[in-house]
Amino acid sequence: MSEEFMRRAIALALLNVRSGQGGPFAALVVKDGRIIAEGVNSVTVTNDPTAHAEVVAIRAACRALGGFQLDGCELYTSCEPCPMCLGAIYWARPARVFYAATAQDAAAAGFDDAFIYDELKHPPEGRRIPMRQMLSSESLAVFAAWREQSEKKPY
Amino acid sequence: MSEEFMRRAIALALLNVRSGQGGPFAALVVKDGRIIAEGVNSVTVTNDPTAHAEVVAIRAACRALGGFQLDGCELYTSCEPCPMCLGAIYWARPARVFYAATAQDAAAAGFDDAFIYDELKHPPEGRRIPMRQMLSSESLAVFAAWREQSEKKPY
Repeated sequence: MSEEFMRRAIALALLNVRSGQGGPFAALVVKDGRIIAEGVNSVTVTNDPTAHAEVVAIRAACRALGGFQLDGCELYTSCEPCPMCLGAIYWARPARVFYAATAQDAAAAGFDDAFIYDELKHPPEGRRIPMRQMLSSESLAVFAAWREQSEKKPY
Repeated sequence: MSEEFMRRAIALALLNVRSGQGGPFAALVVKDGRIIAEGVNSVTVTNDPTAHAEVVAIRAACRALGGFQLDGCELYTSCEPCPMCLGAIYWARPARVFYAATAQDAAAAGFDDAFIYDELKHPPEGRRIPMRQMLSSESLAVFAAWREQSEKKPY
């Protein structure tokens, strides 16, 4: 745990707001005591709703490492990850995560994090964005093919 | 709700497995009865742990529409979204979502979806990837700057 890295993340987030580039969030990935990637919220400048700071930093770190896993890495983020970013963290599998502001702080500033965390507790059909299942039996052929595929690369 | 679109998503997922390009998942975004973007799981071929079918399709749809929101769009996905993709859906805000296989089906095929949904129920410090808060008071300056920024673009 390094206060220096978190101060850097907070400074990047502040710069992102003041420069008008995006939301008040930044993140960085550290490996062996060195920053290997940084990311700032770039949703509105890139027209990419998934371009949250953590996702941007994780993508950049994976490019830097030439892999799709962040083994032994630490993620520093200026704010507690939203559900999308938390999911991205679990798929990238860094060793640990440090955050500064909370999801409640983000909600107070007008961001949907807490709302989405709440939605996750409801069953798919009861969510504000309705989700309905269909053709479930036909879809199982895909997983059967996956099991039979001998050259697959698990992730 | 269109069985034709879901069959297309399932076919793309099957093709993705059989061609060895990636995991058994595909998604597409429909607007006004027309497919505007498609995505397949591309994690291992692009070294991007966030390149799940839904994220790829959402990013492509936003590029096609020139915005960061999917107003009035429908998302068809061959499998119930993982927490990362569900979060991406909430940020992109399509009108509704249709899915075929369930998170349990994905788990049975070796994917972490159900595990991540379970992790979300634990407090940050009690998760398998430990998450610790630090410098919370320093981070609040970022949200204060956001509130004062007059030219911000909410998302």
